[in-house]
Amino acid sequence: MNMHDLIRELREPAQTKIVLLVADGLGGLPLQPGGLTELETANTPHLDHCAKVGVTGLSIPVLPGITPGSGPGHLALFGYDPVEYRIGRGILEALGINFPVGHKDVAIRGNFCTLDAAGKIIDRRAGRPTNEQNQAAVAKLRTIRIPNVELFVEPVKEHRFVLVIRGDGLGDRVNDTDPQAVGVPPLTAKGEDEAAQRTAAVVNQFVAEAVRVLADETPTNGVTLRGFATYPQIATFPEVYGLRAAALAVYPMYKGLARLVGMDILDVGQTLQSQIATLARVWNDYDFFFLHYKYTDSSGEDGNFPTKVQMIEALDAALPEILQLKPDVLIVTGDHSTPSKLKSHSWHPVPTLLVADTCRPDEVTQFSEKACLHGGLGQFPAKHLMLLAMAHAQRLGKYGA
Amino acid sequence: MNMHDLIRELREPAQTKIVLLVADGLGGLPLQPGGLTELETANTPHLDHCAKVGVTGLSIPVLPGITPGSGPGHLALFGYDPVEYRIGRGILEALGINFPVGHKDVAIRGNFCTLDAAGKIIDRRAGRPTNEQNQAAVAKLRTIRIPNVELFVEPVKEHRFVLVIRGDGLGDRVNDTDPQAVGVPPLTAKGEDEAAQRTAAVVNQFVAEAVRVLADETPTNGVTLRGFATYPQIATFPEVYGLRAAALAVYPMYKGLARLVGMDILDVGQTLQSQIATLARVWNDYDFFFLHYKYTDSSGEDGNFPTKVQMIEALDAALPEILQLKPDVLIVTGDHSTPSKLKSHSWHPVPTLLVADTCRPDEVTQFSEKACLHGGLGQFPAKHLMLLAMAHAQRLGKYGA
Repeated sequence: MNMHDLIRELREPAQTKIVLLVADGLGGLPLQPGGLTELETANTPHLDHCAKVGVTGLSIPVLPGITPGSGPGHLALFGYDPVEYRIGRGILEALGINFPVGHKDVAIRGNFCTLDAAGKIIDRRAGRPTNEQNQAAVAKLRTIRIPNVELFVEPVKEHRFVLVIRGDGLGDRVNDTDPQAVGVPPLTAKGEDEAAQRTAAVVNQFVAEAVRVLADETPTNGVTLRGFATYPQIATFPEVYGLRAAALAVYPMYKGLARLVGMDILDVGQTLQSQIATLARVWNDYDFFFLHYKYTDSSGEDGNFPTKVQMIEALDAALPEILQLKPDVLIVTGDHSTPSKLKSHSWHPVPTLLVADTCRPDEVTQFSEKACLHGGLGQFPAKHLMLLAMAHAQRLGKYGA
Repeated sequence: MNMHDLIRELREPAQTKIVLLVADGLGGLPLQPGGLTELETANTPHLDHCAKVGVTGLSIPVLPGITPGSGPGHLALFGYDPVEYRIGRGILEALGINFPVGHKDVAIRGNFCTLDAAGKIIDRRAGRPTNEQNQAAVAKLRTIRIPNVELFVEPVKEHRFVLVIRGDGLGDRVNDTDPQAVGVPPLTAKGEDEAAQRTAAVVNQFVAEAVRVLADETPTNGVTLRGFATYPQIATFPEVYGLRAAALAVYPMYKGLARLVGMDILDVGQTLQSQIATLARVWNDYDFFFLHYKYTDSSGEDGNFPTKVQMIEALDAALPEILQLKPDVLIVTGDHSTPSKLKSHSWHPVPTLLVADTCRPDEVTQFSEKACLHGGLGQFPAKHLMLLAMAHAQRLGKYGA
């Protein structure tokens, strides 16, 4: 029996509210030996108070040493084993531009490339075109029609676009057409099974048409396609947990990940303040609230230690507004660490706190990487966090007699 | 390879003695923020001494957030993955009244109900009959005979009884006949496979006969049946661990769970003192002793914090007598937490200590939830505890060269 079956079996209705506040890339590292992390440097009276009255620990997003992307990091927090549930790159690309991928879709990452007269690739990224060039080329691709399927072409950045093929019985076991080399033509798409062969046939027609409609668009006169991915079969939050779940995220990628697991995507504006205002407005309509805060990650990715400290402090300052709503369970965590020192996601465990009436308090009085090492949650797989959320929300019955 | 296969491969004979002292529902919670748990409140010099010379930690019975019943809680302590090994309700009911369930049995929970003249249920619990009424009705059910099977009917409390059908090739994939509603007749039993169809045929005959023999017994003039369960296929303690194992438990449920895993069930009287006297008497006859102490759980279930504290202190006072026997490995733990605050089992990890000559001591000098957070065992799945017991008992050889 897997974890979701167990939850379905044990779950009980309740009137309780769960808030999952994800500070993206929360965990950090000291810049110098003996120094403090971003979170340890930040002045965070409200988070520290929560750490004191609640229970703390460190979550391991995937496995020790594994650095997650945003997809696996969030799936784990949502209670989906990130090794078992894999979201294909095409789907993530589509989610990242807020394209509403559906169950009949194959999503594909596209690159514009430059072809020579013989049809061989001379630049795999088409000279990194401007967004305007990209959009002009996308406009031409949108004129392509193929019988029995709907095609959607969406610009991303530079040489990148997303192609979504919508139709019946399409599979995603199709090879990348990008040969990862120059001096050779793009590869022909082939399907590994009948469903994928249908997709491959569409793709090969699309590519042929693309070369025709892009003929005058040098350097964006060719395309390669990769990361073919159908919509993952994921039981949703309402199905697994019986929770009416709302996502309060500013960035498309996180809205998309939340949509994958069946959350309602709310219009929250562009700031943490407007996110929290929305939270308050819809408080009675949902059981579970996923609140995503991006700036701890983006400052870490930029290698900007002081800005990451400021972003943590800004989050801390907003905490009282959330606490005023009196959630039955408040969790603050991250989907992974993003140490400014590394300018990237990392594998380090993520400081986590949980506040509820049923917490067994530990001796931790500060929310930080070091302090959380002594917390009552210990170091735990992130995929188990939702079990704790459900338990503290009085939404799980007893297992066995 | 599963854990049991690994143990079978590595186990070695030894003359060592292991005592597993289970204080049922041991873990607790403070009643007030900043307060102490029951175990932290109790004066426990001997447990604290054991914590000091041994190694401590917190066991997670099933998974984080999952509250176990007694069955899964004990199976985990006995080294059986409680998600993999599921004990059906009928079996647990039978164990709970000390019925010696066997491999050819289907055990079923029965309820007396009240039927109207049309055979429709008007009271699903037959007005909660007295034990005398229950026994009178059970006596009538015992007159029923069905070819090719043996029937056993045993009273439980109020409207509840246990039916055991013993015969060849019986299955348990049979629907509950309790419609969970009044104004409708009991459901007909149907089997999902051939073996279960044999059971269902017996059950439908039994129910028809029951209505006949109970006709004059209003309000207990009908029966519903549920929780059909065959005897689980479990490799026993002698088979897995090579241990001659004795159960020293007062309450039937725990005797029954120990019998499931192949322990000898000893007659121990009704008190902790008589349990320990029995332990001393049979010390040379067994390798492993499961000593079950109920009152930490029952006081917690009653929400009686001071009594739970007293029950912990009574256990502590009895510890020297156990230590006098010089077990090579002494483990003190619980099958789950039962915080008085919650008046029920809970999911919180369980304080655990292990004393043996081969312990690597930690810095813990007190046996409590908070102190155990810093213990050398960390937080660990309860199902791994028997591996540690076997290792410290010098009963596990090296894995691989």
